[in-house]
Amino acid sequence: MITIAVDCMGGDHGPQVTLPACRQFLDLHPDAELLLVGLPASLAAFSHARARVVAASEVVGMDDPIEVALRRKKDSSMRVAIQQVKDGAAQAALSAGNTGALMAIARYVLKTLDGIDRPAIAGQIPNAKGGATTVLDLGANVDCTAEHLLQFAVMGSALVSVLSDNENPTVGLLNIGEEAIKGNEIIKQAGELLRAAGLAGDLNFYGNVEGNDIFKGTTDIVVCDGFVGNVALKTSEGLATMIVNFLKAEFSRNAFTKVAAVLAYPVLTALKKRMDYRRHNGGALLGLRGLVFKSHGSADAFAFEQALNRAYDAARHQLLDRVQARIAHAAPLLSGADAVVAPEAVASTNL
Amino acid sequence: MITIAVDCMGGDHGPQVTLPACRQFLDLHPDAELLLVGLPASLAAFSHARARVVAASEVVGMDDPIEVALRRKKDSSMRVAIQQVKDGAAQAALSAGNTGALMAIARYVLKTLDGIDRPAIAGQIPNAKGGATTVLDLGANVDCTAEHLLQFAVMGSALVSVLSDNENPTVGLLNIGEEAIKGNEIIKQAGELLRAAGLAGDLNFYGNVEGNDIFKGTTDIVVCDGFVGNVALKTSEGLATMIVNFLKAEFSRNAFTKVAAVLAYPVLTALKKRMDYRRHNGGALLGLRGLVFKSHGSADAFAFEQALNRAYDAARHQLLDRVQARIAHAAPLLSGADAVVAPEAVASTNL
Repeated sequence: MITIAVDCMGGDHGPQVTLPACRQFLDLHPDAELLLVGLPASLAAFSHARARVVAASEVVGMDDPIEVALRRKKDSSMRVAIQQVKDGAAQAALSAGNTGALMAIARYVLKTLDGIDRPAIAGQIPNAKGGATTVLDLGANVDCTAEHLLQFAVMGSALVSVLSDNENPTVGLLNIGEEAIKGNEIIKQAGELLRAAGLAGDLNFYGNVEGNDIFKGTTDIVVCDGFVGNVALKTSEGLATMIVNFLKAEFSRNAFTKVAAVLAYPVLTALKKRMDYRRHNGGALLGLRGLVFKSHGSADAFAFEQALNRAYDAARHQLLDRVQARIAHAAPLLSGADAVVAPEAVASTNL
Repeated sequence: MITIAVDCMGGDHGPQVTLPACRQFLDLHPDAELLLVGLPASLAAFSHARARVVAASEVVGMDDPIEVALRRKKDSSMRVAIQQVKDGAAQAALSAGNTGALMAIARYVLKTLDGIDRPAIAGQIPNAKGGATTVLDLGANVDCTAEHLLQFAVMGSALVSVLSDNENPTVGLLNIGEEAIKGNEIIKQAGELLRAAGLAGDLNFYGNVEGNDIFKGTTDIVVCDGFVGNVALKTSEGLATMIVNFLKAEFSRNAFTKVAAVLAYPVLTALKKRMDYRRHNGGALLGLRGLVFKSHGSADAFAFEQALNRAYDAARHQLLDRVQARIAHAAPLLSGADAVVAPEAVASTNL
């Protein structure tokens, strides 16, 4: 039996979205059970043989500062969900709440794995090959050293090998293409570390990639710092939204275009599906002593269910053990990272 | 009369693309003349009353290291074109060649403006409002201080006010959205500097924006370091390419979808036009004592002509004077930037 602790209160919509997703997930996964964490009054209407409510008296707001989430709301649904993982009552936790708070609480409650300085958020971006490119970090770490990028590469490799049955996924280092103004010092050092890790058999390093390679699907994994990853993710979400809205407006412009829209329906549906970020919802917080997944805050029930699936698959395939094994293997290269962490770089999530 | 020096040899296609674009441009602009810079043999076939050839004996290759472009090819078409601006023979130069080489040569030949440490590349990205968002830097500077970002904001404001008749364009600072892991120290400092510049009347600062705001058109200008800007640009180009290819493949799948494509033609044409990066071709190298524009290396004649138009508009509206006036106005805030430039950050373009 796989048990997942769900922060039912998180996200823009709370139980309205999380509970229908939980029901659908339970119906499709007979070997799963859920711990529904939240305000009992909000969850009372839900009943399922493989779900039970774990009470929490507080909720972390989407705009709550990390300090408030961490120090004042010690009985929040987010924290109680993560505590279930810590206590061994659940194999994974899932929340659609405030990312900064989730990362800080997860790090405080679970601690990081040996050999890992900074947890990272890994997400999937749909690519031209019909699959998805795993990108990390998507926003947990705004300043990274070369060693951090190596840690991300090792953890991302473990994640993809577990979730996609691809034992040796390729890793690209996100860089910019102009000759001789190519990358900064950190990226150059990271390239050397990743190459060494590739030679040592710790990962399958492809080399540098550029922004467009994320969508080409040139590599299975793209590694970058959290600032760059977050910008890349949101930029592409912005473009996708612009295109979808544009097509909607143009196809409903007049009677002629409305007929065209009906005929083009199969193509437009296929496009919408391809560009549907909801299908790939569910970022993994990697580098912790326990599995925590993050749903998009604006997720609907379909999207939240995909995040549940990802948490379930990760738990079922012992992602944590696989990450630990990979890190242990890469340990000789990973050591020494602590020494080069800039103090300001960890301040935002440092406790 | 506006005179533009054109590096006819640059880009993936050289004279095959640049010459037809020059002819079209000249036909549409009776008050413009062009200096066609390149190997005389390659340009001999071209003849126009308002064009003359300026001979150069060398060509900077797209893969030439900066050192080669700068120190060994002293009679390259790229360098000779920029020298025309330096000598006052042309008001602007345009090249589709290697960006790193162009920036290095332009900086070496023309020098930077007082108050500017680092030139930046400003480009336009089409947005949902039907216009374009000006983003800088797009790749000239991989490490930036807060003061550099302020300089970019001031120069970008001058550019947009000149090219769009919008005297007071809004400036957004590209950041990531997560509460409390929001931005690194440099971005936080830059936010304070930009706010101060806004209060001093040096620019119209909107505040922080995220990646998706580039496409929303939330602000007229988005400021970021060159690494982030380059990744954002290439990521969105990658997504646009993926979507166009997907639609092509889906609409030609069978007889039914081919009929649908015919009916949907006006909508697809409109989409293609909206997403057409060629329309916005022509990045400005800002911060130099002379106007230099950069065309995309893969530009076709239509795209190269757009870059010519931008160089022409900038020259006609005295962009250089406007940039200098804005910088002078912001001088009290801009001073002191030198002191905080990290040595490794300028190494790649430092001579």
